[in-house]
Amino acid sequence: MLPRILLCGEIEYVQEEIKEMFHGIAEVIHLVSESRSEFLSSFGPGGPYEGTVALYRRNASSALIGKFDAPLIHALADTSLVRWIAQNGGGYDEIDVQACKERGNVWIFVSNTPRANEDATATTALYLMISCLRHFSMAERSLRCGTWKIPIDAAQTHDVTGRTLGILGLGGIGLRFAHLAHAFPMRIVYFSRRKVESVPDWCEYVPSVEELCRQADVLSLHVPLNQSTTGMVGEKEIRTLRRGSVLLNTSRGRVVDEEAMIRALVDGHLSSVGLDVYPDEPRIDFRLLNFPRCTLLPHIGGETAESSKVRELKALDNLRAFVLGGVGEDIVPELKAGAANSKIP
Amino acid sequence: MLPRILLCGEIEYVQEEIKEMFHGIAEVIHLVSESRSEFLSSFGPGGPYEGTVALYRRNASSALIGKFDAPLIHALADTSLVRWIAQNGGGYDEIDVQACKERGNVWIFVSNTPRANEDATATTALYLMISCLRHFSMAERSLRCGTWKIPIDAAQTHDVTGRTLGILGLGGIGLRFAHLAHAFPMRIVYFSRRKVESVPDWCEYVPSVEELCRQADVLSLHVPLNQSTTGMVGEKEIRTLRRGSVLLNTSRGRVVDEEAMIRALVDGHLSSVGLDVYPDEPRIDFRLLNFPRCTLLPHIGGETAESSKVRELKALDNLRAFVLGGVGEDIVPELKAGAANSKIP
Repeated sequence: MLPRILLCGEIEYVQEEIKEMFHGIAEVIHLVSESRSEFLSSFGPGGPYEGTVALYRRNASSALIGKFDAPLIHALADTSLVRWIAQNGGGYDEIDVQACKERGNVWIFVSNTPRANEDATATTALYLMISCLRHFSMAERSLRCGTWKIPIDAAQTHDVTGRTLGILGLGGIGLRFAHLAHAFPMRIVYFSRRKVESVPDWCEYVPSVEELCRQADVLSLHVPLNQSTTGMVGEKEIRTLRRGSVLLNTSRGRVVDEEAMIRALVDGHLSSVGLDVYPDEPRIDFRLLNFPRCTLLPHIGGETAESSKVRELKALDNLRAFVLGGVGEDIVPELKAGAANSKIP
Repeated sequence: MLPRILLCGEIEYVQEEIKEMFHGIAEVIHLVSESRSEFLSSFGPGGPYEGTVALYRRNASSALIGKFDAPLIHALADTSLVRWIAQNGGGYDEIDVQACKERGNVWIFVSNTPRANEDATATTALYLMISCLRHFSMAERSLRCGTWKIPIDAAQTHDVTGRTLGILGLGGIGLRFAHLAHAFPMRIVYFSRRKVESVPDWCEYVPSVEELCRQADVLSLHVPLNQSTTGMVGEKEIRTLRRGSVLLNTSRGRVVDEEAMIRALVDGHLSSVGLDVYPDEPRIDFRLLNFPRCTLLPHIGGETAESSKVRELKALDNLRAFVLGGVGEDIVPELKAGAANSKIP
């Protein structure tokens, strides 16, 4: 009997490719559970997921079976043969990766799709930056409600060119955004856990978040969400930005202290924010709608036909490599140390 | 008595500078007329505009005194000493430049501000392109009305990178947009009245509008409005674009045959359009609001604090040069031939 791979979330773009990828290697099965308890009780003998060694996961599966928090991960480790979770997406904050190594020798490994979203997400950050500096979102709403450009005060709008862009987190997305913004040009400064080698000279490292905020006209966030980045941009950081700055977030909502951000919008310290992400998606804090200069997208920063297809392929590539050789390419950093021990049960 | 300069439209950004610029050279006076007839009868002896040799003009003045069409230009030539009109803006389609040389030896010269808008307008085209390819305008409306991203079909959205951008008219704005789009990169093809020398290799000339439309995924318009460009993009050109293409217009509404464009939106030949300009501003054809993927701005493509200030300074520079030496720098091409004969009356 072939090992089984369970799809927790749809395959939309590579339905043909997936058949070839796993032909003779693994049986691909679909999620049929309608609740978390039903899901967790289905891996045993005779259950619909019997023999499943790996999962493909999209965040949309949370609606049925919840986030992959510690209880779920522990239960998987204890009661199933699942030893690999291939997340479709760059962010894997809905998977408790610490819990993945808390069952002694039984680790569950996690891969993500780290480069597939870079172009689409950096393009979204560029869009949000232009929209916030130019008040384009407000302008379009004005046109659509019949008031042409009456509410737009051109004196309050600004060229992109010549401003300073502060990038928090110079991973793939941050660096890609830096390149796009440099084309204007903007001055580019960044802070990352460490100075990134092999970046162009015009990409200037600053040694602290505080210094980054001091220099930026536009601050854009490109860090993953984890314990050390939760609330990383709070009252102090926002108030270190100069008055009238713009804050962009295409990473994760909880990287920002939302209350501090809203206070700064209320008193005008931030002229606007451009957001694709929120702390409690799909719910948003409706106070955000009160600030007409803000641009608010519903977490579609990485979503294009092209990037979605690449994400699916990369997630499945990781699963295929795991089934064939015990380890996928894009194992997340937190679990790399144990990768040598990963294997199909 | 100093020659007078009449401001037909507000100075907003350089109110201090203007005093110094014309100190001892000319008297700057303001529009007080509330109608066209009152305006035209005010240049004679004892009238409020007596002694006016040049005008500063913004399109907003049309609301009071109308466009500078042939009757108005002829009346100015016949009854005033006005010999220079300094338009604030790159486009001077509201001034009948042919009429400016129809009164024998009395030409009225016209200057515009040709480079001041380039960066702001090219940035607007970039924004519209991203928005149309990614359905961002629709996405934001969905979020704001409480439906999160439900109407967005990611499979219908596309990365900018790798697409072909067709630029119609490679003047300053078109070339600037080419540079910004090349950063992704996109492939850039262009058609202009003539092949532009000294452009980068990656900016490919094609010999006809038809060929441009054949190759472009996104067609962006950057020609001035005049007799030869009115309706330049019509049924034939739009249908030569491949199905699902995007049309961007940040030039002038009448460059496009609006009915042909709307037909192509109805039947899906155009997946969307990104517009900053319309044939009959500030009125828009409300059928445009029926196509949710379109992005519609209220002609603010060139409006930023920085570009507005540069525009005012450049328009006033032209007036100052005229008053001092008889000719301003940015005389429009149609009137260049006679510039040697321009002089203060």
